[in-house]
Amino acid sequence: MAAGKTDHALERLVFFSDAVFAIAITLLVIEIHAPHLPRRSPDMAHWHALAELTPSFLGYFISFAVIGAFWMAHHRVFALAGRYSPRILGWNMALLGVIAFMPFVTAYLASNMNARVPAVLYCVAMLVAALLSMKVNRVATSPPMVGEGATGEDIAYVRARSLSVVLGAATAVGFAFLIPEIAQAGLISIPLWRRILARVRPIAPAAD
Amino acid sequence: MAAGKTDHALERLVFFSDAVFAIAITLLVIEIHAPHLPRRSPDMAHWHALAELTPSFLGYFISFAVIGAFWMAHHRVFALAGRYSPRILGWNMALLGVIAFMPFVTAYLASNMNARVPAVLYCVAMLVAALLSMKVNRVATSPPMVGEGATGEDIAYVRARSLSVVLGAATAVGFAFLIPEIAQAGLISIPLWRRILARVRPIAPAAD
Amino acid sequence: MAAGKTDHALERLVFFSDAVFAIAITLLVIEIHAPHLPRRSPDMAHWHALAELTPSFLGYFISFAVIGAFWMAHHRVFALAGRYSPRILGWNMALLGVIAFMPFVTAYLASNMNARVPAVLYCVAMLVAALLSMKVNRVATSPPMVGEGATGEDIAYVRARSLSVVLGAATAVGFAFLIPEIAQAGLISIPLWRRILARVRPIAPAAD
Amino acid sequence: MAAGKTDHALERLVFFSDAVFAIAITLLVIEIHAPHLPRRSPDMAHWHALAELTPSFLGYFISFAVIGAFWMAHHRVFALAGRYSPRILGWNMALLGVIAFMPFVTAYLASNMNARVPAVLYCVAMLVAALLSMKVNRVATSPPMVGEGATGEDIAYVRARSLSVVLGAATAVGFAFLIPEIAQAGLISIPLWRRILARVRPIAPAAD
Repeated sequence: MAAGKTDHALERLVFFSDAVFAIAITLLVIEIHAPHLPRRSPDMAHWHALAELTPSFLGYFISFAVIGAFWMAHHRVFALAGRYSPRILGWNMALLGVIAFMPFVTAYLASNMNARVPAVLYCVAMLVAALLSMKVNRVATSPPMVGEGATGEDIAYVRARSLSVVLGAATAVGFAFLIPEIAQAGLISIPLWRRILARVRPIAPAAD
Repeated sequence: MAAGKTDHALERLVFFSDAVFAIAITLLVIEIHAPHLPRRSPDMAHWHALAELTPSFLGYFISFAVIGAFWMAHHRVFALAGRYSPRILGWNMALLGVIAFMPFVTAYLASNMNARVPAVLYCVAMLVAALLSMKVNRVATSPPMVGEGATGEDIAYVRARSLSVVLGAATAVGFAFLIPEIAQAGLISIPLWRRILARVRPIAPAAD
Repeated sequence: MAAGKTDHALERLVFFSDAVFAIAITLLVIEIHAPHLPRRSPDMAHWHALAELTPSFLGYFISFAVIGAFWMAHHRVFALAGRYSPRILGWNMALLGVIAFMPFVTAYLASNMNARVPAVLYCVAMLVAALLSMKVNRVATSPPMVGEGATGEDIAYVRARSLSVVLGAATAVGFAFLIPEIAQAGLISIPLWRRILARVRPIAPAAD
Repeated sequence: MAAGKTDHALERLVFFSDAVFAIAITLLVIEIHAPHLPRRSPDMAHWHALAELTPSFLGYFISFAVIGAFWMAHHRVFALAGRYSPRILGWNMALLGVIAFMPFVTAYLASNMNARVPAVLYCVAMLVAALLSMKVNRVATSPPMVGEGATGEDIAYVRARSLSVVLGAATAVGFAFLIPEIAQAGLISIPLWRRILARVRPIAPAAD
């Protein structure tokens, strides 16, 4: 296969992934059903109806941030890749399968707030996505895919980042079992994990 | 990171944004439920059923125009950007989050026409989108992102435009509180604001 | 604005349009609701349930073909355009607005087969799309947008094609008023109109 | 038409196809409805509710894999194509029409597990997709579309692959008639068929 062709294959893979991320992130909203009140309902009734949707709004924004973060990681990693390799195809597809599944776990959690099972399911889905994302990142930043422009520091940085997401998601799974009400708060441990990892194996912060 | 890479990162960001805009704009229609009438219903019954959907149709077309206008602004601004900077990522994602939320506020407004709360929510969502859009525009047309081809005039023009959208959306929020029935009419103040701004700080109209 | 930039603006416009066409065409299917039968229902009951969905299947395939045809026309015309012009933006957005509306008129027609109003609405939507498509085609194949590679013959060909679609859609509107049962059959008049137009103002068939 | 233009037409076709594949694959999830249980339901009730969704989950993952496999095949074949030809347009559109239809057959099968008709319909849809995919592959790897970089071996490889998918889908249709409970298991015959084909007409495995 000509060199130009393989670059095009990489572009197309990235494109397809972008589309799946974009659709999954935008589909989140159709799980929130607009309340329909009788005509001339007082404003108070509307505020109540919206207040009841709080878990759905929260779910929307958290999942938007989560999928957005996975997309940004994908974006960051593939900027370091220079060549296409079929080895990435299966792992990337598996990652997309979990991302496209997020609207379901989000809707399930939002309609059953504070319950343990939906919280665990949500966090496990995130953990699986984090593990697959780590694998995709590893393949994309290893030969033969890694580009010439990528420095060892860049690579160490994106890898440490994806490890911190795995640890944060695992923390969230733990929270979900013990205190399901605040399972997603486990995610805020991600920057914490990143800092700890930076202590253990110091790496200079990359441009991003 | 190599120069070629960062251009690619900009392209991918633009692409992802386009996809989210396109999906949000196309999802608007699935909130309109097709009426199902008994067989051999007279034509009049059908016209009635359609007439009852007027708020949904109106909502569809106004939101299509609103999201379309935000996309066109995004398009216009990124044509002036030449380089990628990670600084844009978070703001752009926040803007996309509000855009992807528009199908919900549209459906809510359409099923509760003339009520104050849905009108206020709709206009506030638009105002937030306008503010985020202004911030994205500012980052995209400042160093290090701004391209060599962009003239000071081009930049002043897109910035004045995004300010006029913020003022128009703020006017719509005001309308929504006072006369919710015509809240969205506040949007037609946008060209008015643009003209006023042009008086205050005259700028030559750019190619677009 | 630099020349390279304006080409990029054209690409992005085409891309955004592609995304809207692709989403509208794929959303058609979610208007068909999968039947759910009691366990151990005989095969016959399933065939019956599917038979009742015939109008939905028909609607799906016809609308898929219709949107697909509009996309192919868009594809064909923009292959002749070489430069971006902001003049196309509004018309193209209006065209996309009608295309994104097709899932609604399809679902309405499918749930009210043989009724006049849904048939008329469907065909009018198609006629409006055809008129907007003709306008978009005209702008894209006129200065300043038309590319150097486009010959007079290529341009005459795509324009005659879009005129034949307008006439075919107008025929379908006529059918819808008189014999709603076979409104969409009016579309098969498109190749007929193309042949008539070719007689009136003969043009050599282009590559496509 | 200039040479550069026709390459752009190929890119746009590939792009549009990618978008339809991506949307169809991501829409699969919205057919799974999130269970909503009364507050303070015990964990057991949640596990039960999820267990009842098993067919939907299974359907989601199998269809994700199936659409994903068709996309990967499309990806692989178009990497061998170098030039655009309008001859591919109709066949590719027909393939996309069947792919976009998969969410329906998936939902129908998932809500009527173990019934013969939905299993047959699912497998027939897959068989039609496989046949259309084979035709698209043949056109894309024949003159005038095939690129200079594509070797005879590459072409033989992708063609043998698409034939093995057709045979696997046909096997699945057979299974669906006889033992609908395990219809989709017929798909695992695909690698088997591939091996048999490799015996009959030996071809060296390509890079992918």
